[in-house]
Amino acid sequence: MITLASDFGTPYPAAMKGVILRQCDARLVDVAHDFPRQDVRAAAFWLREVLPEFPPATHLVVVDPGVGTDRAAVVVEAGNHRIVAPDNGVALPAARKLAARADGDGIRVYEIAYDDGATASNTFHGRDVFAPAAARVHEADAVDDADRVTPADEWVDLRFPEPAVRDDGATGEVLVVDDFGNAISNVPGRVLDGRDAVTVNGESAPVRDAYAEMAPGERLVTVGSHGNVEFAVNQGRGDDAFGLGVGDDVSLDW
Amino acid sequence: MITLASDFGTPYPAAMKGVILRQCDARLVDVAHDFPRQDVRAAAFWLREVLPEFPPATHLVVVDPGVGTDRAAVVVEAGNHRIVAPDNGVALPAARKLAARADGDGIRVYEIAYDDGATASNTFHGRDVFAPAAARVHEADAVDDADRVTPADEWVDLRFPEPAVRDDGATGEVLVVDDFGNAISNVPGRVLDGRDAVTVNGESAPVRDAYAEMAPGERLVTVGSHGNVEFAVNQGRGDDAFGLGVGDDVSLDW
Amino acid sequence: MITLASDFGTPYPAAMKGVILRQCDARLVDVAHDFPRQDVRAAAFWLREVLPEFPPATHLVVVDPGVGTDRAAVVVEAGNHRIVAPDNGVALPAARKLAARADGDGIRVYEIAYDDGATASNTFHGRDVFAPAAARVHEADAVDDADRVTPADEWVDLRFPEPAVRDDGATGEVLVVDDFGNAISNVPGRVLDGRDAVTVNGESAPVRDAYAEMAPGERLVTVGSHGNVEFAVNQGRGDDAFGLGVGDDVSLDW
Repeated sequence: MITLASDFGTPYPAAMKGVILRQCDARLVDVAHDFPRQDVRAAAFWLREVLPEFPPATHLVVVDPGVGTDRAAVVVEAGNHRIVAPDNGVALPAARKLAARADGDGIRVYEIAYDDGATASNTFHGRDVFAPAAARVHEADAVDDADRVTPADEWVDLRFPEPAVRDDGATGEVLVVDDFGNAISNVPGRVLDGRDAVTVNGESAPVRDAYAEMAPGERLVTVGSHGNVEFAVNQGRGDDAFGLGVGDDVSLDW
Repeated sequence: MITLASDFGTPYPAAMKGVILRQCDARLVDVAHDFPRQDVRAAAFWLREVLPEFPPATHLVVVDPGVGTDRAAVVVEAGNHRIVAPDNGVALPAARKLAARADGDGIRVYEIAYDDGATASNTFHGRDVFAPAAARVHEADAVDDADRVTPADEWVDLRFPEPAVRDDGATGEVLVVDDFGNAISNVPGRVLDGRDAVTVNGESAPVRDAYAEMAPGERLVTVGSHGNVEFAVNQGRGDDAFGLGVGDDVSLDW
Repeated sequence: MITLASDFGTPYPAAMKGVILRQCDARLVDVAHDFPRQDVRAAAFWLREVLPEFPPATHLVVVDPGVGTDRAAVVVEAGNHRIVAPDNGVALPAARKLAARADGDGIRVYEIAYDDGATASNTFHGRDVFAPAAARVHEADAVDDADRVTPADEWVDLRFPEPAVRDDGATGEVLVVDDFGNAISNVPGRVLDGRDAVTVNGESAPVRDAYAEMAPGERLVTVGSHGNVEFAVNQGRGDDAFGLGVGDDVSLDW
């Protein structure tokens, strides 16, 4: 199985699928192709949420603001999953979660050799570099057996900012806003345990277990499916109601 | 085969796919993941149009404004199809159409047991309740053999409003607006038989068999692929041209 | 394998998939369903880019402003690929590229017989005409063996406008704008060879190999993955920055 994720919209992902299916007979599953444009951190967040739900697979990830520069192409291996991606850290949070689940298993990063500008275009490495590499990795029994893949000495990591949790509150940051308008922070959901309300950037808001515990249009603070504190509106947009966008600081007091 | 439909946008549907593929080897086919947010009636309309086109399958449907409340999770069985969905009626119009085609066959509704808040999150039952249940139903030879599924005593139905057809006109309601901007009503298309024009909410409009019988930008009343009266513009948006949105009353006179 | 491409949005493509899967067991791959509405030329451009990446397949293409009129339905065969589409030229640029790659092989066009308005709706030939035909073509060993398919005497072609290349410049037209906002012209990329800058409609702009060679927000002229001159902004929208939309003339001087 090969999953595909990108910020390409359409129809570029279909070109990657064609390239893969010319090389091998993998089952293809789309993760998303509308990740926020060139937002490596947002993609890293969603991949960490979604990829560990899959059985062992090869994952093709292309969110790649550095396409055509000398940034490397890598395969990140963890817990029997292999993530083929640009070397910008996008795969690392997902890989760490996969490795933690396969306890004792670490992360291994390999570099993919390719000829930029010769056989590959400078603008579409998804088609010319990553899709062929994903097909080769899929076909190899082990990453080491994949053509043009060698252990990497250096590679780029990506870590989400750490929240600060105090006795009387917490400060953190909005990591992503989902399609429903839920503003998702890096603050761990456990800080809401046993609370009926918290103050969010100076204004009080109710804490609830489920969106539908509020009337439609009413805002709430809850723990999302990712386990983090999330700012929401029942049947509405939490980002608007709380005035919170990606990268905004959020201060909780109780 | 398991089809998937939701109002999730991305990338949440991919988490459901991962969960299913961890459990079983079903073929996955997306119906839509951009149904109007939390609009159970619109989803019910589209499912009635689309699901009966498929061969017998398990259909996973998650349009679920009540997630995290005590609303039940159900499997609706009709005509060799099984629809796994929240108990809010979203599956019923499709199930009635499937049952009518498999004549003599009725609708059977089963309840899916799950532990809300224990093993399941309160915000993403698509991943934690419905996707695992769809995989179990897919794997069982009969719904009755699926794990944690029992016949339901009570369940929620959903019926579209009935139009009123008179000798000199008809009144109805706009049920949905499609991606082209066609405003689709509940008035049966046969009322247009033999007519060249009708009055729509007081203004005359031509009746045509096909969009392209009008010049680009010109409005028309036609019978859509669903068999209902539809308000359209050739190569444009009928909802704007006729001033008709979801839930609006529409009065036809002839 | 059957690929699917349309301007339908959702959920209409799912109805086509259901129809196909009732008839045959083909693998289904989506190319795109958000082609610009009823823009036959844009769809023809993208199909020429994407379809040749695939291994031999049946391609179902429905961008069909003439639905319900007497325009024919056709199968265009080239280089072991078969494109089922309305007879409006949408398949021809892709077919020519496929034929050129399978050198010596030409293009063959077949007409698909169907009963408009009898068994088929007037508004959704994707479901009622093209999807069943694609399934029949997929199942036949040769197009000639497919039910209700006969060689066409006449058919509609589509050719992109030709650019004019001079010693001191070139003039062309914007054919499409992609989801990133890159404005893609019909001017061949080779005119940029060895240049550091060109004048675009009277204003100078840098020529670069890759988006990331400019700072974020800065504009550039480059050669896209399609081989044509493209007007772009690193991590931004080239169409806005250059004031170029689909169909606009573009004049390059050097």
